Amino acid sequence: MIIDCHGHYTTAPEPLNAWRKQQTEALKSPSLAPAKGSVTVSDDQIRDSLENAQLKLQRSRGTDVTIFSPRASAMGHHVGDETTSRHWSEHCNELIHRVCRLYPENFVGVCQLPQSPGVDPRGVIPELERCVKEFGFVGANLNPDPSGGKFSEPPLGDRWWYPVYEKLCELDVPAMVHVSQACNPAFHTTGSYYLSADTVAFMQLLMSDLFKDFPTLRFIIPHGGGAVPFHWGRFRGIAQDQKRPPLPELMKNNVFFDTCVYHQPGIDLLLKVVPIDNILFASEMVGAVRGVDPETGHYYDDTKRYIDASSLSDADKQKIFEGNIRRVFPRLKV
Amino acid sequence: MIIDCHGHYTTAPEPLNAWRKQQTEALKSPSLAPAKGSVTVSDDQIRDSLENAQLKLQRSRGTDVTIFSPRASAMGHHVGDETTSRHWSEHCNELIHRVCRLYPENFVGVCQLPQSPGVDPRGVIPELERCVKEFGFVGANLNPDPSGGKFSEPPLGDRWWYPVYEKLCELDVPAMVHVSQACNPAFHTTGSYYLSADTVAFMQLLMSDLFKDFPTLRFIIPHGGGAVPFHWGRFRGIAQDQKRPPLPELMKNNVFFDTCVYHQPGIDLLLKVVPIDNILFASEMVGAVRGVDPETGHYYDDTKRYIDASSLSDADKQKIFEGNIRRVFPRLKV
Repeated sequence: MIIDCHGHYTTAPEPLNAWRKQQTEALKSPSLAPAKGSVTVSDDQIRDSLENAQLKLQRSRGTDVTIFSPRASAMGHHVGDETTSRHWSEHCNELIHRVCRLYPENFVGVCQLPQSPGVDPRGVIPELERCVKEFGFVGANLNPDPSGGKFSEPPLGDRWWYPVYEKLCELDVPAMVHVSQACNPAFHTTGSYYLSADTVAFMQLLMSDLFKDFPTLRFIIPHGGGAVPFHWGRFRGIAQDQKRPPLPELMKNNVFFDTCVYHQPGIDLLLKVVPIDNILFASEMVGAVRGVDPETGHYYDDTKRYIDASSLSDADKQKIFEGNIRRVFPRLKV
Repeated sequence: MIIDCHGHYTTAPEPLNAWRKQQTEALKSPSLAPAKGSVTVSDDQIRDSLENAQLKLQRSRGTDVTIFSPRASAMGHHVGDETTSRHWSEHCNELIHRVCRLYPENFVGVCQLPQSPGVDPRGVIPELERCVKEFGFVGANLNPDPSGGKFSEPPLGDRWWYPVYEKLCELDVPAMVHVSQACNPAFHTTGSYYLSADTVAFMQLLMSDLFKDFPTLRFIIPHGGGAVPFHWGRFRGIAQDQKRPPLPELMKNNVFFDTCVYHQPGIDLLLKVVPIDNILFASEMVGAVRGVDPETGHYYDDTKRYIDASSLSDADKQKIFEGNIRRVFPRLKV
């Protein structure tokens, strides 16, 4: 079985976006109560939104299941306040839940969390619990920078985040560390912001003793771990200079990189330097890059092809495609 | 000849640091006038600071010349105001000038610019001119984020920076895009901040038409281009989706990556995906990583070894070690 651990509902039906537009416009008129309201989407609209996109690509690429979460760039935690974020997250997660009920063999849910910059993160716990316990979701996306590009939140090793970590461990679900759209013009969301946030998160974890306090806490750093594998020697050297554990020891049961790296030499490097047990198959489709690579004739984000073409043993490929993912997402029952 | 295009005076004699300490302490007492004052360092102190560090490493590694600038992490553009930054930059650059006069065969200068967050960058022009015209420096370090981790400056493609670009072109010197120490606890300076800033800078250039306005402007993005080579497919795909030029065309005469990547697989990837004409030899020594890699028995930052061990032709190696660098730094006369 081939499990893609990182897919977003980037093709959600229009009423979801219309609701969000209405919500953000109401922020300008405080007299309008921020009621949650409803998003009216039919099952057929959901089917239409997926059949020619994620489902078609699953079939054509030969992947089986996608661990599926709301569109990351639309989480927009910097917009409005915690109530804004809570209502929006609930709608997004409820839609993912409907997707998973309509296609239980193709999609498994991961939730967006109702974070807000500078707001105590324990406020996200009720929604996390609802998604895992009521909806059967298997993980969460945790935004290390809900400010959208100011990096104003405490580092991931800070006790600020501990209540969330306690709940993640209690529920036995991992978190993918994933920022949303940048609202800082210095950053390009999918080009530089995502990759910078991945690199920043890894370094925060490298410098902290977090996993002594939470030995079962598991983070997935997406997009192949940002800049880390390319600079593996630099990070190894910094860890050594700083008397931190060697990277494989640091990552062992706690930190995992996905395979959202869109060319063969990049994947080959990832597979060469990062321990195989810490790599999880993912494509991020339909996502950051939508085109076909003229050099290969295939979609840039068809990452299964790169793993297939690598020199890994079949046993190692199976770990990346399925085994490691089941270990990181123990609630996954497909 | 082997030219290292990225070295910092990280071992500068103590009186320089003492002066800086005094300067920053005076910021707390506005009654103390921010006079430039003097830094008393003897030629012997300069020799001592280099003989057992950069010069020893040049000899043992078999490199000839280092393009040498003040310590990047100490530029501290976020400290104080533009006067603070001007006095500090002048002292740092004057010391580099003394190094280059003492060792004209080993060091060629690149200047620190007296930037300050949010301050019109044309204020840096007098110091840039002084360093190039009076001191014979061959380039400048331009900080795209003088805030030290808030990324609050306009992107590099913005007209905000144009007066500096006009002067760089007029003087025919390149700029290395290099941030200083992070003052934002989310970032680790040499681990995540440098690499993020490199990636951010590349993406800003990718999205702008800057080189139509300045066809001879040349930027070096250090640390191997941050995350870019590892995610070459992602950046190619984004460029394609956004109707931007292909990356080799974008970079051609204007954007160069150095080889500060501290392991063989990283260097191999860099050499494989990035056009050879756009790669410049560098080690950043004595710099971010100071240890010896127990897997190889050599310094992590001895990047010459990785190039030597690569499968490149001798002609291509010569381009990286010398030819490309002379093209990017035409004022270099060694």
